[in-house]
Amino acid sequence: MQLQGIRVIDLTRIVSGPFCTMFLADMGAEVIKIETPGKGDPVRKQGESPNGFSYYFATFNRNKRSLAIDLRSEEGKDVLRKLLATADVVVNNFRPGVMETMGFGREALRQIKPDLVSCNLTGFGLDGPYAERPSFDFIAQAMSGFMSVNGDEGEPPMRAAPPISDLLSGMYAAMGIMAALLRRERTGQGEEVTTSLTDSMTSVMSFLASNYFATGKLPARTGNDNALVSPYGMFEAADGQVALAPSNDGVYAKLLAVLGLDHLRERPEFLNNKLRFQNRKQINAEINVKIGEKPIAHWIEVLNQAGVPCGRVLNVQEAFDDPQTQHQQMRLTIQHPDHGRLDVLGFPIKFTDDPCKVYRPPPNLGGDNIGVLTELGLTNEAIDALKAKGVI
Amino acid sequence: MQLQGIRVIDLTRIVSGPFCTMFLADMGAEVIKIETPGKGDPVRKQGESPNGFSYYFATFNRNKRSLAIDLRSEEGKDVLRKLLATADVVVNNFRPGVMETMGFGREALRQIKPDLVSCNLTGFGLDGPYAERPSFDFIAQAMSGFMSVNGDEGEPPMRAAPPISDLLSGMYAAMGIMAALLRRERTGQGEEVTTSLTDSMTSVMSFLASNYFATGKLPARTGNDNALVSPYGMFEAADGQVALAPSNDGVYAKLLAVLGLDHLRERPEFLNNKLRFQNRKQINAEINVKIGEKPIAHWIEVLNQAGVPCGRVLNVQEAFDDPQTQHQQMRLTIQHPDHGRLDVLGFPIKFTDDPCKVYRPPPNLGGDNIGVLTELGLTNEAIDALKAKGVI
Repeated sequence: MQLQGIRVIDLTRIVSGPFCTMFLADMGAEVIKIETPGKGDPVRKQGESPNGFSYYFATFNRNKRSLAIDLRSEEGKDVLRKLLATADVVVNNFRPGVMETMGFGREALRQIKPDLVSCNLTGFGLDGPYAERPSFDFIAQAMSGFMSVNGDEGEPPMRAAPPISDLLSGMYAAMGIMAALLRRERTGQGEEVTTSLTDSMTSVMSFLASNYFATGKLPARTGNDNALVSPYGMFEAADGQVALAPSNDGVYAKLLAVLGLDHLRERPEFLNNKLRFQNRKQINAEINVKIGEKPIAHWIEVLNQAGVPCGRVLNVQEAFDDPQTQHQQMRLTIQHPDHGRLDVLGFPIKFTDDPCKVYRPPPNLGGDNIGVLTELGLTNEAIDALKAKGVI
Repeated sequence: MQLQGIRVIDLTRIVSGPFCTMFLADMGAEVIKIETPGKGDPVRKQGESPNGFSYYFATFNRNKRSLAIDLRSEEGKDVLRKLLATADVVVNNFRPGVMETMGFGREALRQIKPDLVSCNLTGFGLDGPYAERPSFDFIAQAMSGFMSVNGDEGEPPMRAAPPISDLLSGMYAAMGIMAALLRRERTGQGEEVTTSLTDSMTSVMSFLASNYFATGKLPARTGNDNALVSPYGMFEAADGQVALAPSNDGVYAKLLAVLGLDHLRERPEFLNNKLRFQNRKQINAEINVKIGEKPIAHWIEVLNQAGVPCGRVLNVQEAFDDPQTQHQQMRLTIQHPDHGRLDVLGFPIKFTDDPCKVYRPPPNLGGDNIGVLTELGLTNEAIDALKAKGVI
């Protein structure tokens, strides 16, 4: 697998960090998830758990091992030091400064393993006026400007439903770690990678940011209408709504041809995208008349055939039952030895020769204590002593 | 830099592909953007262009070189073959099959460069019933189930404002390419990486998917209220709204302490998150009474100080003027030799030792023709001949 032989010490919990290390694990890295004994990652207790195991936790933590160890104790820190000496990567999503307080700041890490790649997932970055603030997805969605452009015109700012800043930040962290590992191959040097919830959100502002940079004008909330292209959006078929996205003049012409509206191409108010954008209501009305004559399934068939992107809003059940989603295996079933069936999200990155796979179920809390500690060279007596002291 | 020495042939245009190769370029890879002579990437003509150069294009294409060459001509294909033989990575966002038709299918690429990493950015994946369909961000947002959970209860499904499926798919592509390059370091083998707009959206469905997997129940649209945690969301301060995100019982207790509402901890209907979730309106009402007594700035100060994530919705101007955003340099100014000032988005991934930087302005169309072709060993006469034939 892609990351075979890479060992990751994962000090993260909740969403952003576990999402980052999920990618590393899915690609074959050995991820050792460090958890607090008796408590563990709080996501173990979040979301629905029909068999006594959280499905939410399962997606983020498949393919990982769990070592439950108390990092407030000296013995726990000692085990972590030993682990880090064998590792390629360490990831944390503590607030800035916590790693230092624990005795694992950048300089200490360098002493333990000079070429270690260390990754910080933060709310606001390692430094700056808000670096010490706590954060959470909702705050990053609000403060990045994202919510201000999201939602319908005339309605309040709207967040995205998933914890998107956590997820983006986890993806960036995984990307940054891999980039640093590639640099290590070439230079032999370690590196420190940092991402933040807020910068991750800011980074996806795309044209909404660049148009503001160019003009100083604030972007509007345009709901389901595209802010650059028209026609585009939801249209009313005979039995419900279809989503149309003719992305350029060529595809617009194909749409008109299929609808029998070729004559609109000559109309001065629709000559180019800029004019159609200004006269959005009129062009949408012309299109809706035709779209309304036939059902959704008809339009999905004939428009895609003609090269016009067309689909419909699927609910979550329909999305996962959809033949394409199934073909792409975006829902996977894992058999957990203690908890039976657990369904998790599939792999968004497909490798033709050496694909991602689930090779290990999500771990029970501390389920790999003995294995990991034995590999580290601890004797049975030493492990029993840690247990007796409540360190593991 | 992280990806120094990596050469990327970039056949992509619009958003998903250029976003992918932007990360590679920002980390030091040499990205040669292949464009159609006289036309170029359509994004060159999109978005605001106060100095005759699109700011939208500039963000996605800084640090890249541009080779304008007609790939429908045999001479153009010959140049591409020569380029690929010198490359580590090739990226395309054509529809599946187009690379084969052009003579650059997987097997042909292997012949040219056995250890090449080839990446496909697609609408629906390389295969499956919809593989041949055209797609676009809006369609992926609709078909992934994302829109069905986004937006307010009782209101229609809502897309996210930025082209988020394009952006996610570009991020995954960059991640997959780096993973394949790490595998190549170990095995000497090439690889084929594929991402899709739809799978990328599906992959961020997080608890919305896993709770559905666990229960078979469709998730509701909950607008700005979190679907798992309460209290959480927008509250009414004396001079406007503040966003509060107390993520767990400990932080909830801190919030109550700051608000002088400690007595609520004993109230049976608010004893745990599950109960507070059921009695969301009541707990929100209690909190709003207190929050309404003071202005936004007060709450941001005292709540963050106490460890309760708190912020407000910033518009795009406020977000980029914010001292933390500025500290993190999320808006960068590039001086383009022909077009003057171009402002672009900054780097979401920070490397402490060897940071991303802008070392090359976004290219003019074909601006690197002579340089790239000369490096390939073409003589001035050969280059002139290509020019005379309209190949470049």
